[in-house]
Amino acid sequence: MNVLAVGCHPDDLEIGCGGTLAKLAAKGHRVTMVHVANGDKGHKQIVPDELKAIRRLEAKAAGNLIGAEVISLDVPDLAVKSDQDELVGKLVQVIRKVRPDYIITHPPEDYMKDHMEVSRAVFDASFAATVPHYQPTDGEEAHTKVAPIYYMDTLAGVGFLPTEYVDISDYIETKIQMNDCHQSQIKWLYEHDGIDFLDFVRTVSKFRGLQCGKPYAEGFKQCEAWPRLTTERLLP
Amino acid sequence: MNVLAVGCHPDDLEIGCGGTLAKLAAKGHRVTMVHVANGDKGHKQIVPDELKAIRRLEAKAAGNLIGAEVISLDVPDLAVKSDQDELVGKLVQVIRKVRPDYIITHPPEDYMKDHMEVSRAVFDASFAATVPHYQPTDGEEAHTKVAPIYYMDTLAGVGFLPTEYVDISDYIETKIQMNDCHQSQIKWLYEHDGIDFLDFVRTVSKFRGLQCGKPYAEGFKQCEAWPRLTTERLLP
Amino acid sequence: MNVLAVGCHPDDLEIGCGGTLAKLAAKGHRVTMVHVANGDKGHKQIVPDELKAIRRLEAKAAGNLIGAEVISLDVPDLAVKSDQDELVGKLVQVIRKVRPDYIITHPPEDYMKDHMEVSRAVFDASFAATVPHYQPTDGEEAHTKVAPIYYMDTLAGVGFLPTEYVDISDYIETKIQMNDCHQSQIKWLYEHDGIDFLDFVRTVSKFRGLQCGKPYAEGFKQCEAWPRLTTERLLP
Amino acid sequence: MNVLAVGCHPDDLEIGCGGTLAKLAAKGHRVTMVHVANGDKGHKQIVPDELKAIRRLEAKAAGNLIGAEVISLDVPDLAVKSDQDELVGKLVQVIRKVRPDYIITHPPEDYMKDHMEVSRAVFDASFAATVPHYQPTDGEEAHTKVAPIYYMDTLAGVGFLPTEYVDISDYIETKIQMNDCHQSQIKWLYEHDGIDFLDFVRTVSKFRGLQCGKPYAEGFKQCEAWPRLTTERLLP
Amino acid sequence: MNVLAVGCHPDDLEIGCGGTLAKLAAKGHRVTMVHVANGDKGHKQIVPDELKAIRRLEAKAAGNLIGAEVISLDVPDLAVKSDQDELVGKLVQVIRKVRPDYIITHPPEDYMKDHMEVSRAVFDASFAATVPHYQPTDGEEAHTKVAPIYYMDTLAGVGFLPTEYVDISDYIETKIQMNDCHQSQIKWLYEHDGIDFLDFVRTVSKFRGLQCGKPYAEGFKQCEAWPRLTTERLLP
Amino acid sequence: MNVLAVGCHPDDLEIGCGGTLAKLAAKGHRVTMVHVANGDKGHKQIVPDELKAIRRLEAKAAGNLIGAEVISLDVPDLAVKSDQDELVGKLVQVIRKVRPDYIITHPPEDYMKDHMEVSRAVFDASFAATVPHYQPTDGEEAHTKVAPIYYMDTLAGVGFLPTEYVDISDYIETKIQMNDCHQSQIKWLYEHDGIDFLDFVRTVSKFRGLQCGKPYAEGFKQCEAWPRLTTERLLP
Repeated sequence: MNVLAVGCHPDDLEIGCGGTLAKLAAKGHRVTMVHVANGDKGHKQIVPDELKAIRRLEAKAAGNLIGAEVISLDVPDLAVKSDQDELVGKLVQVIRKVRPDYIITHPPEDYMKDHMEVSRAVFDASFAATVPHYQPTDGEEAHTKVAPIYYMDTLAGVGFLPTEYVDISDYIETKIQMNDCHQSQIKWLYEHDGIDFLDFVRTVSKFRGLQCGKPYAEGFKQCEAWPRLTTERLLP
Repeated sequence: MNVLAVGCHPDDLEIGCGGTLAKLAAKGHRVTMVHVANGDKGHKQIVPDELKAIRRLEAKAAGNLIGAEVISLDVPDLAVKSDQDELVGKLVQVIRKVRPDYIITHPPEDYMKDHMEVSRAVFDASFAATVPHYQPTDGEEAHTKVAPIYYMDTLAGVGFLPTEYVDISDYIETKIQMNDCHQSQIKWLYEHDGIDFLDFVRTVSKFRGLQCGKPYAEGFKQCEAWPRLTTERLLP
Repeated sequence: MNVLAVGCHPDDLEIGCGGTLAKLAAKGHRVTMVHVANGDKGHKQIVPDELKAIRRLEAKAAGNLIGAEVISLDVPDLAVKSDQDELVGKLVQVIRKVRPDYIITHPPEDYMKDHMEVSRAVFDASFAATVPHYQPTDGEEAHTKVAPIYYMDTLAGVGFLPTEYVDISDYIETKIQMNDCHQSQIKWLYEHDGIDFLDFVRTVSKFRGLQCGKPYAEGFKQCEAWPRLTTERLLP
Repeated sequence: MNVLAVGCHPDDLEIGCGGTLAKLAAKGHRVTMVHVANGDKGHKQIVPDELKAIRRLEAKAAGNLIGAEVISLDVPDLAVKSDQDELVGKLVQVIRKVRPDYIITHPPEDYMKDHMEVSRAVFDASFAATVPHYQPTDGEEAHTKVAPIYYMDTLAGVGFLPTEYVDISDYIETKIQMNDCHQSQIKWLYEHDGIDFLDFVRTVSKFRGLQCGKPYAEGFKQCEAWPRLTTERLLP
Repeated sequence: MNVLAVGCHPDDLEIGCGGTLAKLAAKGHRVTMVHVANGDKGHKQIVPDELKAIRRLEAKAAGNLIGAEVISLDVPDLAVKSDQDELVGKLVQVIRKVRPDYIITHPPEDYMKDHMEVSRAVFDASFAATVPHYQPTDGEEAHTKVAPIYYMDTLAGVGFLPTEYVDISDYIETKIQMNDCHQSQIKWLYEHDGIDFLDFVRTVSKFRGLQCGKPYAEGFKQCEAWPRLTTERLLP
Repeated sequence: MNVLAVGCHPDDLEIGCGGTLAKLAAKGHRVTMVHVANGDKGHKQIVPDELKAIRRLEAKAAGNLIGAEVISLDVPDLAVKSDQDELVGKLVQVIRKVRPDYIITHPPEDYMKDHMEVSRAVFDASFAATVPHYQPTDGEEAHTKVAPIYYMDTLAGVGFLPTEYVDISDYIETKIQMNDCHQSQIKWLYEHDGIDFLDFVRTVSKFRGLQCGKPYAEGFKQCEAWPRLTTERLLP
């Protein structure tokens, strides 16, 4: 299987579906991790230009842990706009290159705008990528299927009722390590939001595990829009 | 896999999930079909006692087509009551005997009371069946798992948004044949409800197919209650 | 048109849809008003047996104002049980006699149990009334259609979002007069619930009017269950 | 009655509400059909500029079948943006000219972005069209009412629960003919989405018919926003 | 404040709102803990009569930890029926004696029937308790207010989106101790459901804390029914 | 407490939460009232430039009645765009200056676009205002908390089910006076929408009062997004 995961900030995929991606990779599937925003404003002291370089490396390191390709679309924080052709165009290129069997991204409602915009842009791009005459750029042909989309959990699971669960019990430590790569954020999240990042991630995974009877799990919801509905389980 | 399907009237399973049951059976799974009500009032002329005998045979014939065991709980029409211990007790016995990996039944909201009562009784019985000291009757031990439940479509799909689909394209003709066994109902449904039974069944299956990109499909919704949530697909 | 309205207590129809019933009657439709509970416990001092006689007269007087037939099913307050055959049987008899084009009743969720039980019993009875072999009693034949059901507003509109509105601007004073017939309740509602009954009724009607651009209105929601859905407006 | 229908692509109205428009026209109402996008990217081989000319003719032909005026807003595919004044301005002009009693358009959630943007743009324009000082262009005065909006079905009915139905049994063949005018799309939809266009349209109409007890029907949902709510049925 | 908490089994309040009850008690409020079912079937080996005596003691011990009165309604497991006057009558007596400012109980949807029945019975009884002529038994007068109801979390939080949170950070160890009193269940829940009881309780409280920015919290949802809505916060 | 209220047009806060703001002010809290749109198109005869000056004075007068600071962001009517950095930037500045404990604004769904855009812009700005490197302009530091948001009622309460109520019985006349300051709108709303403005406002407040048992009230819904959830009541 060929799985494309698109998160907003460089650490969002690790938080929301790191275990699932680790599991996919371990089972031999191809995993591509995209972060749309470069995370340049996720710190109090470090200035944006410096920070975005640091975070790109952190994201690469996290991806490397599971052998995933990591792509940055390099949009500045708080400037993610699904209504602009530029972002959708970038995502279309990624989709046409990766040619995913399915996509994982943020749900349409989450705790801050950039996350929600990524969700919308991915939804739009996954359709546009299949239209031959939309940005018929050099080399990459239109994707042959409108890829099904799975929405990962919101931050702290607020307002989110999963309909599918992935057992990540064998991958929880890998997930924690992936999150641990984001050292700049461990400090920021503590200062900005008062949370202990790694403990936060572990607790949510444990809670989702309680819900489905596993030590650790991640929850998802399928995007219910035609022609993305399926008759087989795609998640691992 | 060991699948228990519990419908209300003798033809409800054929309408709602006949294709899925045919597919399960064809793939070597064990299928048990239970109808709770005996269908004795589903006719204008034929009197109840006569009709319930006819319909039991019709149900048997339909089950035979796919090699499923057919069980009648013999509750008179319009007398299905989930709140009575008798019905739940009967279902507990069936569950303890069949020991299903999962159960298919009506959703909690449907077009008439008996259907809704079956849904509730199945929900209750599937838990009670696992409690050793609940009706510890001769022979059958408590079931070892609270079986996940899948709700099949409502009649005509009113108010129902499936979250899982089963591709029944290879089994649509078997499904039609199973429904065709219910000759007494073809007349009744035409007279009572003005519908062409077999065409009705085919159209709904075709519509659910359009939704998920298959020639014919059936839609389901998982019962979202602890500890019934799973991390793998159970439907075929 | 032949309209059957079934409320719980002797004054509930007046509160929830008195204007609509007045309008129907004024336009020449046949209106039958049923109250299921006799309202015997709706007072602090007056004892049940005395009160239920008073309230029956109050209900009759209110119905007389618009020329509606008034039927009491005489169930004691706090003893309305939709799961008992007796209540459903009584409602089936009423439906078979009245043979309504549609039914108005309480929504499935409301502020106290008796209301909710009436809603369920009406839903069940409206189907059972069409089954020839269900209680084939002397005289009345099975009704020929499963009547569409409209749910009227909850008390104070809590949790209720109407999908259809009836303009009752020309009937608001009649509605108030109908409610004014329930003198025993004006005292009780003030003492038990701290509300000024007539002002309460007028305010809710005015608020529903604001929502649909009329001086006064009543809000309804159709029961969305097969085969009750329609392709024409039934409400006046 | 004066009805304005606004679809996204040149064939969307035919798919979603062709039968209702045919019925309206047959009953003497004035019908105006607007497609926002020119459909220029709806093909594999035919290039955009050529295709949009073809599709405009196809749309005209479909409208001609029922005597409806057809207007193209000529926005390129995948470039429909409700947040841009240009699109809303164009729609305001159409509304001020047509002066509709009500509007039919896509629901806010559908299977691809352009559809959803049309829905939002129509919602916005229908209000703006009534404000005298909004784009007070030559000739057309502000519309005198914020027109009620009916949302037509999503593609394949995914995620859509109608609250109103229109019986189109007498107009199903006209609906099919209207869809048959879109020859360029019959090929495209087969290649891009794997669907048999005319059969698809007929099946959905038949399914919606089953839900409301008619041979063929179309489902709608009213836009529930002030001051668009009504006290009479507007759909035919 | 005078708070009545009604759980189903002898340990359900400890699981769902033990921290909130501990906080209430610590702040000087009067707390009454009722368990409806006696929990007699919550074990594999211990027989019902023996078990119910053990569990009553366990519940008492848990209540003693915070100085709460503990009342058992002694209904056998899997026999809780909200539709029976007996259960509602018992609850009415409790309410009239305790005269609560508000009530905490299970939500209407939960993982097994007994929980759901308790929720309904409490809803019904809290109204009936205020009606003078309903079971006008010796001594206790009708309660003077229809008490607001707060629904506590479902088991494992499945399907539950809290709208109010209580910070229990200072009471988490007391909550764990209260749960630790239920030694018979620690074994049963491990054997029947495969869960580590105390860790389960702590994890859910921690997760709810993450959602509202506290180390530990419990989530609630107010019962939205007239006349139970309030204009002040009642939860501690 | 430091409360920031952000409405769309110069009179929207007075309509939706004027009583709550009056109560807050009377209890000594600091209230800041922002209107995003200048209301320049809210009249038939008066031209935009003239009207916006009039309405700014009207808003000031209303704010003065309760001692609130009034800020106009001066966006022309029908040009409010949450996706533009300019509007979000302006709101960020206001938030950083006011440093609110919580914010009141429109709900995400309302009767016209500008209202909905304000809701989204406030949601976005309240997060962005806390990010140090987002528009680090002279003087004002990033706000130290992502402020909780309360959504006020929609116009005429359409589609809105409050979860929190504020008793404004002692402030209803102040609320009416605040609305009475908007003389230009009393005429416009009568002409454009056919409503008697002051009566409208009073009726909705009375209706919301009926729902929660007070003479007059206002309804709200908390924005359920992390990290805005709280464990104490913030509304007065």
